[in-house]
Amino acid sequence: MAQVQMKHDNPSFVLHGIENVKFEERPVPEIQDDQVLVEVRRTGICGSDVHYLTHGRIGDYVLEKPMCLGHESSGVIAKIGAAVKPEMGLKVGDRVALEPGRSCRKCPECKKGKYELCQFMDFAATPPSIYGTLARYYALPADLAHPIPDSVTFEDGAMVEPLSVGVHSVSTLGQLKSNEIVVIFGAGPVGLMCMAVARALGSRKVIAVDINDDRLKFAKSYAATDVYKPGKKNEGESDDDYSVRAAKELREALGVPQLGRGSIDLAVDCTGAPSCIQMSLHLLKPAGTFVGVGMGHNMNINVPFFPLINKQLKMIGSFRYGTGDYELAISLVERGLVDLKPIKTQQYEFDHAMEAFEATKKGKDANGKTVIKCIINGPK
Amino acid sequence: MAQVQMKHDNPSFVLHGIENVKFEERPVPEIQDDQVLVEVRRTGICGSDVHYLTHGRIGDYVLEKPMCLGHESSGVIAKIGAAVKPEMGLKVGDRVALEPGRSCRKCPECKKGKYELCQFMDFAATPPSIYGTLARYYALPADLAHPIPDSVTFEDGAMVEPLSVGVHSVSTLGQLKSNEIVVIFGAGPVGLMCMAVARALGSRKVIAVDINDDRLKFAKSYAATDVYKPGKKNEGESDDDYSVRAAKELREALGVPQLGRGSIDLAVDCTGAPSCIQMSLHLLKPAGTFVGVGMGHNMNINVPFFPLINKQLKMIGSFRYGTGDYELAISLVERGLVDLKPIKTQQYEFDHAMEAFEATKKGKDANGKTVIKCIINGPK
Amino acid sequence: MAQVQMKHDNPSFVLHGIENVKFEERPVPEIQDDQVLVEVRRTGICGSDVHYLTHGRIGDYVLEKPMCLGHESSGVIAKIGAAVKPEMGLKVGDRVALEPGRSCRKCPECKKGKYELCQFMDFAATPPSIYGTLARYYALPADLAHPIPDSVTFEDGAMVEPLSVGVHSVSTLGQLKSNEIVVIFGAGPVGLMCMAVARALGSRKVIAVDINDDRLKFAKSYAATDVYKPGKKNEGESDDDYSVRAAKELREALGVPQLGRGSIDLAVDCTGAPSCIQMSLHLLKPAGTFVGVGMGHNMNINVPFFPLINKQLKMIGSFRYGTGDYELAISLVERGLVDLKPIKTQQYEFDHAMEAFEATKKGKDANGKTVIKCIINGPK
Amino acid sequence: MAQVQMKHDNPSFVLHGIENVKFEERPVPEIQDDQVLVEVRRTGICGSDVHYLTHGRIGDYVLEKPMCLGHESSGVIAKIGAAVKPEMGLKVGDRVALEPGRSCRKCPECKKGKYELCQFMDFAATPPSIYGTLARYYALPADLAHPIPDSVTFEDGAMVEPLSVGVHSVSTLGQLKSNEIVVIFGAGPVGLMCMAVARALGSRKVIAVDINDDRLKFAKSYAATDVYKPGKKNEGESDDDYSVRAAKELREALGVPQLGRGSIDLAVDCTGAPSCIQMSLHLLKPAGTFVGVGMGHNMNINVPFFPLINKQLKMIGSFRYGTGDYELAISLVERGLVDLKPIKTQQYEFDHAMEAFEATKKGKDANGKTVIKCIINGPK
Repeated sequence: MAQVQMKHDNPSFVLHGIENVKFEERPVPEIQDDQVLVEVRRTGICGSDVHYLTHGRIGDYVLEKPMCLGHESSGVIAKIGAAVKPEMGLKVGDRVALEPGRSCRKCPECKKGKYELCQFMDFAATPPSIYGTLARYYALPADLAHPIPDSVTFEDGAMVEPLSVGVHSVSTLGQLKSNEIVVIFGAGPVGLMCMAVARALGSRKVIAVDINDDRLKFAKSYAATDVYKPGKKNEGESDDDYSVRAAKELREALGVPQLGRGSIDLAVDCTGAPSCIQMSLHLLKPAGTFVGVGMGHNMNINVPFFPLINKQLKMIGSFRYGTGDYELAISLVERGLVDLKPIKTQQYEFDHAMEAFEATKKGKDANGKTVIKCIINGPK
Repeated sequence: MAQVQMKHDNPSFVLHGIENVKFEERPVPEIQDDQVLVEVRRTGICGSDVHYLTHGRIGDYVLEKPMCLGHESSGVIAKIGAAVKPEMGLKVGDRVALEPGRSCRKCPECKKGKYELCQFMDFAATPPSIYGTLARYYALPADLAHPIPDSVTFEDGAMVEPLSVGVHSVSTLGQLKSNEIVVIFGAGPVGLMCMAVARALGSRKVIAVDINDDRLKFAKSYAATDVYKPGKKNEGESDDDYSVRAAKELREALGVPQLGRGSIDLAVDCTGAPSCIQMSLHLLKPAGTFVGVGMGHNMNINVPFFPLINKQLKMIGSFRYGTGDYELAISLVERGLVDLKPIKTQQYEFDHAMEAFEATKKGKDANGKTVIKCIINGPK
Repeated sequence: MAQVQMKHDNPSFVLHGIENVKFEERPVPEIQDDQVLVEVRRTGICGSDVHYLTHGRIGDYVLEKPMCLGHESSGVIAKIGAAVKPEMGLKVGDRVALEPGRSCRKCPECKKGKYELCQFMDFAATPPSIYGTLARYYALPADLAHPIPDSVTFEDGAMVEPLSVGVHSVSTLGQLKSNEIVVIFGAGPVGLMCMAVARALGSRKVIAVDINDDRLKFAKSYAATDVYKPGKKNEGESDDDYSVRAAKELREALGVPQLGRGSIDLAVDCTGAPSCIQMSLHLLKPAGTFVGVGMGHNMNINVPFFPLINKQLKMIGSFRYGTGDYELAISLVERGLVDLKPIKTQQYEFDHAMEAFEATKKGKDANGKTVIKCIINGPK
Repeated sequence: MAQVQMKHDNPSFVLHGIENVKFEERPVPEIQDDQVLVEVRRTGICGSDVHYLTHGRIGDYVLEKPMCLGHESSGVIAKIGAAVKPEMGLKVGDRVALEPGRSCRKCPECKKGKYELCQFMDFAATPPSIYGTLARYYALPADLAHPIPDSVTFEDGAMVEPLSVGVHSVSTLGQLKSNEIVVIFGAGPVGLMCMAVARALGSRKVIAVDINDDRLKFAKSYAATDVYKPGKKNEGESDDDYSVRAAKELREALGVPQLGRGSIDLAVDCTGAPSCIQMSLHLLKPAGTFVGVGMGHNMNINVPFFPLINKQLKMIGSFRYGTGDYELAISLVERGLVDLKPIKTQQYEFDHAMEAFEATKKGKDANGKTVIKCIINGPK
């Protein structure tokens, strides 16, 4: 429960075009009957926010109208729509984590419980939406305002969004079970969230793979039980030979067998890099699962079909998050099974939002400190 | 029930090296206590049999000792081991379809009910095994001799093996349900079996894709509801552009939407061709499933990760067949839901086995008739 | 596509209390933006409609305000709300089957894809709803108006509702697969729908069990492959001994083994009778599934726990229908896999609705003909 | 790794009839090629061992020949059969937990990965088997000798058997997921194992229900987060009214809602008592799961069908343990997620085995200390 008092302004951080972003005043949003109005308290900056700033687009999502940035947020409920059911138990003053995607609830995907695949999804800070959470107020359907207990800070609450990506990939899709062995490629924010979830769900071994020593060091101190930096490709070595060799070397270095007790059940790729995806398939045990979360520069990945078919592997693409993911993410934090504090490496006042974008872009803040996640406070 | 009388010879068709195959006499196999001895009546010829004949190997499976060929067979039980349980209900004279792979039954994969992934699998006509079914007698564990009713001919019984590949891909792994839409790439024997299974399981639409008009014509007359021959790649067109365009053209030609009612739930690739696999991912609806059965010359396939991730597709490799597949395959034939007769295009006496291999290799028999499946009778 | 022209009256068949039902004029419903208005063409009468008429309640659902009866209906779209998405492809004049339950779309059950369990469900002709489909017009969310092709008659369309109960029980929950053996207790309308679905999904054997010879005769002519009338309980015989014996006698009479090939995979109870439920558990093979659809006078059923535990059986309760059930039901009719025509045994003009209720109550119409399903035409 | 030296005697604790048990010398078992010989180090006593001693039977399993007792054991590998595959990695001296049931590996249930349902199961200390583990030596298939690391004591190793019952019920069948709420009826050895597994798998709340204060106290100190002792049935109160009321009172006392956040996902009954099973169904949330492990005096349980059907509950019977259960159980102990030490309340030398049976039967040892699990050391 937090104090909240309606204010009449709505300062917003709005993207107008490539590298063209302004602080401006927007009207306080009117809420629909089934919505709540949230006073935003903290917002995390995501690579996609930066990408819109620097490119004005991500793939087919192209900025056409000024759009408020920000979609990883927590806040306090300031107003509740008339038709919000009392059974939901929401009150003004409730502290909440905000789920940024509103689905249509009526298409086949929504009705199947797969709302992340809704073709009519309206997602904060993603065109054609013009709304985002880097503002004083944000309106959203009541069921997307997920209560957080007092033990979960507003900073944690903002990071429930990236944590939900990890929950979706590792739990909902990857279906990791206690005692399973998982390898996670990429020790950036998404990879770290996947590692944290894997540990929290009882993975026996969480192997982090990255080519950056600092990231591996952090991963080891955070949630990985084992870390591995693959050697480089030899001159003249084919991609295929390389990934087979790199997989073999990882196995030997870490004492991981190809099958049976201790072999790898789940591989999660958070890089989009072809060599990581190829290594994954060579590493997995028979009937193992690969989950692809990351997309990189390469839209087409050379996938080795021999292990895919001979080991009957399963490859699953992971997109955002869906039913139950926010709930599980919040509970992992609340129960102390995931610690989000080390992930927040920088924090800025709203007026300094631009610095958070700069730091995220460069991977280092003004003091040279490595960035994992920058948090921006809500407007004063 | 068939008449059977023990004979004392065991004429066998044995591969000694590349293009070096001989009819020779082998000892009648001794059966172990939990085995049965089967007098082979019919054997189908598979591309892999031909490949061992012409190359002496398939991938890592290398012929090192003379090996009897043949693994798609039916026959009659001639002898039953002392420890075969009466509850199995097997009798001398029973007509059976032979399952050619014996697994260890004790490794984690076997105990999980995924025996097709057993690392100790011993498979007929696959090195290092020296046994095959192109002989008078073949010994196998009793539970791999699957009874066939009188309404299922010995020819049908031999083709239960390839049909089980279709069952494994479309039903066990692809989990096709009634009313679903499926696209199958490749209208060769395996593709046709997949189409037959899809129809038998109540698929609403079975779209066959191939670049050969005769194969499409046959597919249409057999089990496909729709057929499609993709246009050629334009000069200078990238693989990626081509597969996106080809998928779009297929959808337009056949009136298949991208999502919602009538969109494609399942894609099965029986070609191993990159363009087919790429088209598959562009064709599938959100959360759709791709099953890869075929392996071609390309061991590495350029897979478009944008649709994989954005649509949360699932890609599964399919290897041979496993628990329940033979049973379902036999029942589909018995109940008239799959008609195997049109698949058997040629039949040869045992002494003429070499002609069956020639015809299978060329795709045409001595009379110029197209080959789908050649059947060889057991020795007289 | 059907002709439709807006009219300005809305004759309705309204229940005011026990045995107190009136034809009256109600205002034409206003539709909300995401709704369509349907001109009702046919309505089937269900046992629950009759129960409200005769008892004024079913369990906790108590009639408190006048309520229009009827919930199994088909019709023609007369008007479309402004916010109905064009992607849904609905047009005025479209022929549709009506799904009578509107869920909240926001509670955990709805978001999991289990909307039938929504605590806020508002269901036609079920208090506290005051609406039903025995009227000229009925307003409902656009996604609950399921298009039916021309080959599906309006009578068929009305019966899609009970058919969906069968789909939900046998397919969605029972997960019947091709070649499985199913036993269905109760050959009334729901049982017959379950049998039809089981046949349509490729069940190898559909055993109908009932104590009424006429019903069994009809079941056999309709969708059952085998029928069985259990003997009576002996004097002094315990319920437990009886159900064990009756199960054994069924198995012997029909040649059904206790386990292995040909044993019973799925039992569906549409009676709510203790002896049927008990027999089910004794009949099922190890790891078999029981689905309970029917509720009878006994709210508490003596369940034999020895077979439940020793065979690791699964018992599932089935409530109404949910995601995908209407779609599959319609497709089964459209593809000729289920024939609903024999189920409609009587048809009445709207003005004679009361006769349909009488006939349904008595199980015989005025001419002494047995009732399975009475259909009432929409108002002229 | 433990020291082991073959001895030539095989002292055994053999049941000859009701209350007629003798220490006697039996031949050292010959091992088959795929077996190992284990020198037994610790054996836990189970209620079923005591039941054979006092009744000479359990249900249809009737003692007909002298049978060695004991089936919850750990030991050291003393000999390895010639055909045991090196890939299994077993060596003489390996410390192992013994899985007591050998299945046929060839029947449909075994091949489906459900070997606990094998009709040919041969289970230690269960007629018609004559073998048990209360002896110096026990021979078993190599894959049933599960290695335990040094951090797992022999006492722990013996208790892996009852822990596997908990794993099977809560994880394999109950499919408990992180953050779920579970209620467990019965705080005896099996109930405690279920609670321990639920906690180890990340259950948010583990509610123990029992009518014995001491048991609840222990449960609370061990693995339950909440405990509840239901009030008594009122005079004249029906069973049904009682179980509805008791469920309501539990919910109120512990602040557990009927549905939504915090409601009960899984109920596990380890009592076989009708009132517990009835309360379970009233407690579960919509689509919740009930797992029945315990069997009591009542073979027939009055099950309330209204909640079963209206909430679409699932009831599953749980029998012994199967694929993967031992592995998970061992890993939970090894990783410190389950602590078995508090469960072992008494320990006896082999010569004093009879005292362990007495104490287990009475629930108290000679010193009046409450018994949870008695452990008997292997012969010196």
